[in-house]
Amino acid sequence: MAKELKELTKRSENYSQWYQDLVIKAELAENSAVRGCMVIKPYGYAIWEKMQRILDDMFKETGHVNAYFPLLIPKSFLSREADHVEGFAKECAVVTHYRLKNAADGSGVVVDPAARLEEELIIRPTSETIIWNTYRNWIQSYRDLPILINQWANVMRWEMRTRLFLRTAEFLWQEGHTAHATSREAVEETIKMQGVYARFAEEFMAMPVIKGVKSESERFAGAVDTYTIEAMMQDGKALQAGTSHFLGQNFGKAFDVTFIDKEGKSDYAWATSWGLSTRMVGALIMCHSDDNGLVLPPLLAPIQVVIVPIYRNMEQLAQISEKVSGIVSKLKAMGISVKYDDADNKKPGWKFAEYELKGVPVRLAMGGRDLENNTIEVMRRDKLEKETITCDGIEAYVMNLLDDIQQNIYRKAYGFRATHIVSVDTYEEFKEKIEEGVFIMAHWDGTAETEEKIKAETKATIRCIPLEGDKAPGKCMVTGKHSKQRVIYARSY
Amino acid sequence: MAKELKELTKRSENYSQWYQDLVIKAELAENSAVRGCMVIKPYGYAIWEKMQRILDDMFKETGHVNAYFPLLIPKSFLSREADHVEGFAKECAVVTHYRLKNAADGSGVVVDPAARLEEELIIRPTSETIIWNTYRNWIQSYRDLPILINQWANVMRWEMRTRLFLRTAEFLWQEGHTAHATSREAVEETIKMQGVYARFAEEFMAMPVIKGVKSESERFAGAVDTYTIEAMMQDGKALQAGTSHFLGQNFGKAFDVTFIDKEGKSDYAWATSWGLSTRMVGALIMCHSDDNGLVLPPLLAPIQVVIVPIYRNMEQLAQISEKVSGIVSKLKAMGISVKYDDADNKKPGWKFAEYELKGVPVRLAMGGRDLENNTIEVMRRDKLEKETITCDGIEAYVMNLLDDIQQNIYRKAYGFRATHIVSVDTYEEFKEKIEEGVFIMAHWDGTAETEEKIKAETKATIRCIPLEGDKAPGKCMVTGKHSKQRVIYARSY
Repeated sequence: MAKELKELTKRSENYSQWYQDLVIKAELAENSAVRGCMVIKPYGYAIWEKMQRILDDMFKETGHVNAYFPLLIPKSFLSREADHVEGFAKECAVVTHYRLKNAADGSGVVVDPAARLEEELIIRPTSETIIWNTYRNWIQSYRDLPILINQWANVMRWEMRTRLFLRTAEFLWQEGHTAHATSREAVEETIKMQGVYARFAEEFMAMPVIKGVKSESERFAGAVDTYTIEAMMQDGKALQAGTSHFLGQNFGKAFDVTFIDKEGKSDYAWATSWGLSTRMVGALIMCHSDDNGLVLPPLLAPIQVVIVPIYRNMEQLAQISEKVSGIVSKLKAMGISVKYDDADNKKPGWKFAEYELKGVPVRLAMGGRDLENNTIEVMRRDKLEKETITCDGIEAYVMNLLDDIQQNIYRKAYGFRATHIVSVDTYEEFKEKIEEGVFIMAHWDGTAETEEKIKAETKATIRCIPLEGDKAPGKCMVTGKHSKQRVIYARSY
Repeated sequence: MAKELKELTKRSENYSQWYQDLVIKAELAENSAVRGCMVIKPYGYAIWEKMQRILDDMFKETGHVNAYFPLLIPKSFLSREADHVEGFAKECAVVTHYRLKNAADGSGVVVDPAARLEEELIIRPTSETIIWNTYRNWIQSYRDLPILINQWANVMRWEMRTRLFLRTAEFLWQEGHTAHATSREAVEETIKMQGVYARFAEEFMAMPVIKGVKSESERFAGAVDTYTIEAMMQDGKALQAGTSHFLGQNFGKAFDVTFIDKEGKSDYAWATSWGLSTRMVGALIMCHSDDNGLVLPPLLAPIQVVIVPIYRNMEQLAQISEKVSGIVSKLKAMGISVKYDDADNKKPGWKFAEYELKGVPVRLAMGGRDLENNTIEVMRRDKLEKETITCDGIEAYVMNLLDDIQQNIYRKAYGFRATHIVSVDTYEEFKEKIEEGVFIMAHWDGTAETEEKIKAETKATIRCIPLEGDKAPGKCMVTGKHSKQRVIYARSY
């Protein structure tokens, strides 16, 4: 049984298969009967709930409130913003009818042709259109601004190739939609929320990210500028981990959202939107986990500590359980989530493998000798290191250990990334290096043509124009034309 | 401005219009561009968030975990359970295509006929079918049971007549779906969750409810028994405030979910489902609010205390603000949510009316004389009573006051209900009384025919067969046949 649990493909053999195996075996999610739509299982959902709670607090601290807008969007709304419709019309679920009826042949139910909608509705792929259509009635004066709203919702994009968490037809996310009186304020909001995402990724997910701006080709459909955070997975590929868009007046104009400013003049409202999705659960897995299973940062782990008793008979189990109950109380009093697994139908070895697979950061085990010696065995999941310590002050020890694990996971990911970013000056070298699974810092002439050529020839795209670091100009590695600064290329999820 | 805010229709004039006015003017929700779908505005959503947090904690305390299942359900799934399809096929949104394309005439986008789904998908009206199709793979042995899962989700029922919160095409809810090894355990779960809903309604919403069982005609489509909690609104109509269904083996059989029991025999799994929706926000409003606006129980109020300064000049405002900041800190330290409204572009009178409308339970006001005397004016929203008290120990005073308001709102609703339930023995008297807006306890012969006749003639339905109280048998008021016990009739939302 323990062996079966362990049967993960190794990362070095097939990284993609390893990921798929892990999501299934750790019971995070599975495919559903509906093409491209996943079932998020309780353990996977518990991670998402932790993410939600933390992000929601961060949004509220930065002045945002939650609201809810309709799932369905009139088809014509999509067409109002020219770029937006190009980006989203090609992969959306369309509602055309509102009733089924019994089939004449008794074989089940069929669509009732009499119940055809006058205008088709699409399931939101993102909510700019329905929200800006609503904002028109909420905004008259600069006194009504800013509007700082976030929504937790499901959205749907009819992706052809799907992967659990990373790319699914339906996914869960939050989408912020703000309206402002000035361009400057909207840009500030856009950058502020990119900062919130970066802080969430680094402090809670223990995942280092690069803050940057997207090239025009990679921008959100309808945005003037897309700010992104980009993370490196263990195969050296990039994962876009949260984007914040400055939408200019594009949606204000498309939905005629005007306001009277302080000087009494009418202007269109300025917009931002920003989103982060269940994709982050996939990023979390791919960033830290290993061939034994999940490695979860303590701040997002549904169970932070598991305690397993090792006993010869029920009498000894009772003694261990009594001792452990005191430890459980102390840990809980520190706000640590802890599970005592005294299930009698599974062996300790099976449990050890199970919790390693599930990525529980700290495992405590107590046997007969520990009981005699007032000791306990402590295993940290990130390093798979064991030691036996005294039970006195165990709660403080575990608290420190959890903190250390959180830091260590971040450092490890940071170290990995540091050794997998290279600067390259020639396209020849670029083509070699990109095969090694790295981020490449290279000069670009700023044109979509060059970008497209590189993508077609190497499958690498510009992940972002970094906001920090080396800003020196140079010459484009492909065309030799002027380049403002190095940009980051990578293959990506 | 204050006058305009106050322009609510009076309950006595037109209760239904009063409700509609209040939802709009208190900025809880509004209709959207999509027929029957509402926008839940930040203040309304904040109430729902409070409800969610409390319920979620209650579900977890009773051993449940959250998960997420797909929004879309294959059409054929609906037909698997005979009653279920009858109940839900007639009012569902149907997805038939997965792509739009540019119209040939350049007028926008049209459905791409080439992107027709092989099998239509419906937007979940409830998730029993997709969830039980999933459970089939999760359940093999009694060791896999029980499964105790809850989902927070949006659902859609294509209602023809909609009203904000009370009946909308799309609504938000939670739906619990549990699987058990025995009928008895499933029934216990069903009743336990009815109990959780009743406790939530009474302790947090301050809304007394009657626990009962639905008659066959009013049962959930696919249930063996539907347990309900029924609340009385201020017009004497009933509102079903949460239902918990014992589904027997209906879905186990429909989706072939079998397990090996302790004796090694195969059996179908037993099911329950239970749900509570944004409808509860409507119930909350209709149960307590008055002609001045919302009356919110402190435990669900987004803002529990508002403080308004009354000042002659900016210097005095600065003095008041300094004094108030100490009070704000003390209140926050007690876990009380408090807002200090020192906005300079609105008069105190306008603010008073605004917060009355919004149902903030406690309003504090401080003027120049209060500053001199170390006093503050306290107004409680439920009774609209004012008094001036010393600032010393204000935080404990407010804490007690919030508790008293919570109790008082409940008592008031309980008292109202007590005077609006009547026992009736003849159908003549029934027809008179029902016009007065009351709940009627009357005998019923247990047949759907009698129920249907009463409904057709009086618009009253059996809200429930109460689980507590008078259980004496009698004779049906319509047919004179045997009746096991009195049931509750009312007109309903």
